[in-house]
Amino acid sequence: MKIAILPGDGIGPEIIAQAVKVLNVLGESFELESAPVGGAGYAAHGHPLPEGTLALAKAADAVLFGAVGDYQYDNLERQFRPEQAILGLRKNLGLFANLRPAILYPELAGASTLKPEVVSGLDILIIRELTGDIYFGQPRGVRECPDGPFKGQREGFDTMRYAEGEIRRIAHVAFQAAQKRDKRLTSVDKANVLETFQFWKDIVTDVHKEYPDVALDHMYVDNAAMQLVRAPKKFDVMVTGNMFGDILSDAAAMLTGSIGMLPSASLDANNKGLYEPSHGSAPDIAGKGIANPLATILSAAMMLRYSLNRAEQADRVETAVKKVLAQGLRTADIHEAGTTLVGTEAMGDAVVKAL
Amino acid sequence: MKIAILPGDGIGPEIIAQAVKVLNVLGESFELESAPVGGAGYAAHGHPLPEGTLALAKAADAVLFGAVGDYQYDNLERQFRPEQAILGLRKNLGLFANLRPAILYPELAGASTLKPEVVSGLDILIIRELTGDIYFGQPRGVRECPDGPFKGQREGFDTMRYAEGEIRRIAHVAFQAAQKRDKRLTSVDKANVLETFQFWKDIVTDVHKEYPDVALDHMYVDNAAMQLVRAPKKFDVMVTGNMFGDILSDAAAMLTGSIGMLPSASLDANNKGLYEPSHGSAPDIAGKGIANPLATILSAAMMLRYSLNRAEQADRVETAVKKVLAQGLRTADIHEAGTTLVGTEAMGDAVVKAL
Ligand SMILES: CC(C)[C@H](C(=O)O)[C@@H](O)C(=O)O
Ligand SMILES: CC(C)[C@H](C(=O)O)[C@@H](O)C(=O)O
Repeated sequence: MKIAILPGDGIGPEIIAQAVKVLNVLGESFELESAPVGGAGYAAHGHPLPEGTLALAKAADAVLFGAVGDYQYDNLERQFRPEQAILGLRKNLGLFANLRPAILYPELAGASTLKPEVVSGLDILIIRELTGDIYFGQPRGVRECPDGPFKGQREGFDTMRYAEGEIRRIAHVAFQAAQKRDKRLTSVDKANVLETFQFWKDIVTDVHKEYPDVALDHMYVDNAAMQLVRAPKKFDVMVTGNMFGDILSDAAAMLTGSIGMLPSASLDANNKGLYEPSHGSAPDIAGKGIANPLATILSAAMMLRYSLNRAEQADRVETAVKKVLAQGLRTADIHEAGTTLVGTEAMGDAVVKAL
Repeated sequence: MKIAILPGDGIGPEIIAQAVKVLNVLGESFELESAPVGGAGYAAHGHPLPEGTLALAKAADAVLFGAVGDYQYDNLERQFRPEQAILGLRKNLGLFANLRPAILYPELAGASTLKPEVVSGLDILIIRELTGDIYFGQPRGVRECPDGPFKGQREGFDTMRYAEGEIRRIAHVAFQAAQKRDKRLTSVDKANVLETFQFWKDIVTDVHKEYPDVALDHMYVDNAAMQLVRAPKKFDVMVTGNMFGDILSDAAAMLTGSIGMLPSASLDANNKGLYEPSHGSAPDIAGKGIANPLATILSAAMMLRYSLNRAEQADRVETAVKKVLAQGLRTADIHEAGTTLVGTEAMGDAVVKAL
């Protein structure tokens, strides 16, 4: 089994190093190979997703990704900016299913800005479609406005779109995920306004026939954003498109107050995947040794489970993370009075020891 | 001055009745005329926005709107569904600027699902563009997928678009609103992915040159959704497009926990406007006399201020609402131990008395 390691920018290298340490003590013979991505890719090879990096990612059985983005790349032309690497990897590897758990560990209930009774025990899984929608739809650009009161002016435009097969395959992923959990799926759309999402709703409803054991409901995206704030624990699995998923999954992550704890997986049709923490590259704290490596370590656990067929090892890693939390170890982002403040490396070492 | 009164469905008629009571005691000689809209419009004239209703709204100086939607209209074809009336009014009246304050009254801090220290004193103004974006962009529909791996399948599609003049005029509204407040404006976009919103960002940046006294920052929509949960009090005025504004303004409203308190205004280029509560038609509690009329009464206050040039009367109404809250009167949605539970009519009467 070959794993591509793409540390990226900012805190990426530090947190990835801890996850690599964890992988190395599992006693498995994984082959790990690193390559630069994001700003680091641009600095080394003039492109955020250098050819060699993409080739490595394609050849590997799974990709472990840190984070990308740093101040010095902010003013590059868009095609060279670090985040283009993420979009490029998703598209080129066909990673259409983004799984983002929003879990609030009981020990960290205080970290949330929401009242404990509203969020303690929170365990939502958001499934975001990742290679369609307005992210990649053509045509797009700036053109002359063809009609209406602004005719003749410049206008920016993009195309939202979802083909039937694209909706079907993400719906299958979502129903199957719900079957392994509380068997409730909320499909989030804007069918009252958008043709794309009326179509989405119709197809999801059709796929539901194959999963009679799952309870399906449909919710408008504006209402979903409200319900996430009002009563997030009512959700089990949510499925939605690329754009709405971008917004809702970040809102859901922030409900926990501990985004430094949340992993994510982006899977293709064969469960090959890219795994990355839900948080960003945090350039303001890069190199200080204080970043939380747990989201990356938990991303490695997801990788063991979904792409490397090592469910038992995944369980071991997740149990080890729970153990260090129970021991009271905390990085700065989740530190509270009465707990022990540790740095990135010490947290990684503690997980290794707990294994 | 002529005011079109459009009660609509569900709790609409009950809450509008209280706002009308309030308008009637101000000692102004407004001419009020009612017409059916939404499901009531469909029931009376076969269309959610009957011709007579639209004509009345066009002829009036301002529109006071209740809410639309009820169970029996849920399965109508989309063009006949109640919410089409809202979209039709916005488009036909050119109501491009939607102002949605998210204010947490100190007395109601407990109603929020967020911790009091995170939200008490919250006072954000979200300005949402309302007649452009993917809501109205053409072409849209279901077609045969023209290319890519899903070629030949059916696909749903929509067009996102903003013309330069459309962005300029909403940016002016936003900068001017910020000038009257804390002089900070956050423009929310997704310039890292969407051409429409890279264009949006460029134009807003350009308009900023005319408002050097306002501090402008740009934020991605996913980050904005997170920051609303993490530290909402950091925002002063936010401006964004129709689709992102739909999601963010509802999330922001729900932060207060008291959406029954939040008014909204939708203005055209001459400050003619439509005023409605931020909440919906709540058909489950319609006719029970328990709905909160304060959002509608506060919407009437916004109408006095923005469209009818009666700022003093607007102040009077807002002060009266604060007074009844201070008296401890609460409808069921905001009721807590130690306060006095009252119904819709009693709440309206209390505001009248406080005037
Ligand atoms: C960096 C950006 C292009 C990306 C997205 O919008 O998908 C990010 O926000 C994410 O959610 O992974
Ligand atoms: C009912 C619907 C069409 C409408 C919208 O999406 O604009 C509503 O959600 C709103 O925010 O007023």
